[in-house]
Amino acid sequence: MLPTAEFRWPVRVYYEDTDAQGIVYYANYLKFLERARTEWLRAQGVDQPALREADRLFVVTRIETDYLIPARYDDELQATVTLAERRRASFVLRQRVVASHDDTIAHCRAVVTIAFLQASSMRPARLPAHLIAES
Amino acid sequence: MLPTAEFRWPVRVYYEDTDAQGIVYYANYLKFLERARTEWLRAQGVDQPALREADRLFVVTRIETDYLIPARYDDELQATVTLAERRRASFVLRQRVVASHDDTIAHCRAVVTIAFLQASSMRPARLPAHLIAES
Amino acid sequence: MLPTAEFRWPVRVYYEDTDAQGIVYYANYLKFLERARTEWLRAQGVDQPALREADRLFVVTRIETDYLIPARYDDELQATVTLAERRRASFVLRQRVVASHDDTIAHCRAVVTIAFLQASSMRPARLPAHLIAES
Amino acid sequence: MLPTAEFRWPVRVYYEDTDAQGIVYYANYLKFLERARTEWLRAQGVDQPALREADRLFVVTRIETDYLIPARYDDELQATVTLAERRRASFVLRQRVVASHDDTIAHCRAVVTIAFLQASSMRPARLPAHLIAES
Repeated sequence: MLPTAEFRWPVRVYYEDTDAQGIVYYANYLKFLERARTEWLRAQGVDQPALREADRLFVVTRIETDYLIPARYDDELQATVTLAERRRASFVLRQRVVASHDDTIAHCRAVVTIAFLQASSMRPARLPAHLIAES
Repeated sequence: MLPTAEFRWPVRVYYEDTDAQGIVYYANYLKFLERARTEWLRAQGVDQPALREADRLFVVTRIETDYLIPARYDDELQATVTLAERRRASFVLRQRVVASHDDTIAHCRAVVTIAFLQASSMRPARLPAHLIAES
Repeated sequence: MLPTAEFRWPVRVYYEDTDAQGIVYYANYLKFLERARTEWLRAQGVDQPALREADRLFVVTRIETDYLIPARYDDELQATVTLAERRRASFVLRQRVVASHDDTIAHCRAVVTIAFLQASSMRPARLPAHLIAES
Repeated sequence: MLPTAEFRWPVRVYYEDTDAQGIVYYANYLKFLERARTEWLRAQGVDQPALREADRLFVVTRIETDYLIPARYDDELQATVTLAERRRASFVLRQRVVASHDDTIAHCRAVVTIAFLQASSMRPARLPAHLIAES
């Protein structure tokens, strides 16, 4: 059974995030999504620096991103995380970047595949049961 | 008939592009891909600042990105562009980031959908025949 | 009389901020400093999007930055702001990026000069008395 | 005797470099400056990845940056490097970002202090005579 809970992380749009089109630069949504994933992992007790010490690493292997309504300077956003699928050495997340004041205003939607690797060899490692638990 | 020509643009990896995992940060490949698209448009005679004056704009609406072999600091790369499909108000590109010295070492592969918009309204605009010609 | 109050804004270090040296990339401290300045302005009631509507803009004209102890992935930092000097059409801030848990661990120190401009002409504009008040 | 030669490196402004003010974001000039420094070092035969293998590292310890005329999307720029001073374990560079077509249009000017460090300890290391030669 997959969890239905959606994790949410606040993001404010600063000048660093925008471009001369007046909107958030397309690559920078991936930073917002990564911040939310990091905090979602932390909320589940995953200590990424400790994993590194143990020669383990999370790496994004695929991301499908749809850009919907452009976000702008000074906007208050939320980046979300929902676990969609858990595999032996990877997992899939559904993520969104939405307006803080209105969840139906979606700026960006993504499906992200993350592999669990042995850092030294960059080869897949078995994802321990306690990491990325399916609710 | 679709063109088979592949446009290529050189990219050197600097510290700005890497992260503490020692590899190119996943969002930064999207910068490499955008540089190549910009230069591919320029090579076809598309003047983006002039388009802006004419209230027109290219915007990425979807990107599917696969991360394959990590690229590292100081690597010499090439970002490629191939036109895959041309529509009435958008087009689809296939792009890759490969090692300069060996085209079979692919760091990243992407399928990018780009819409042609009226900048003021952010609504789709008809793509003129001379822009984005199919070979 | 100059205010002695120091404004503080929390910053978490994500992969986006680091480089292959394993530390925060030197340009990215300027993003942390700008986030703190933006929030310091907001805390004083300055609405930057409204200023833009009124053809006004803040622009950094000079920054002196000293890099001290490197910050690393996952560090919890605070970016600080103190008003050092207020002029007719500009002001000077002292800023620091310090460890959250120990204010004496300074990663970066900066002196930042900010001009108030008419956006359309990019020429200096008189800084209204209610903006950037000296305590 | 100090060298008078000025090293120059071309930089094109892409959307990634700009912000919603329509100009190059202030932190991103530091990326342009670092690209030019990297290529200046390479032109002198300095192999930074090899230095890393030898536990050595260049780190910016101080930068004074003046922002003059804003650069904009699609501008062709040149980032310059001139050695200003060579010390036992560090050196100082003067750098500029100028318009390609007119050297008198200076967008940014910087004085950059760079330390040579033992990477493992982050302590100063003696700068070998053949590195950073004063012409």
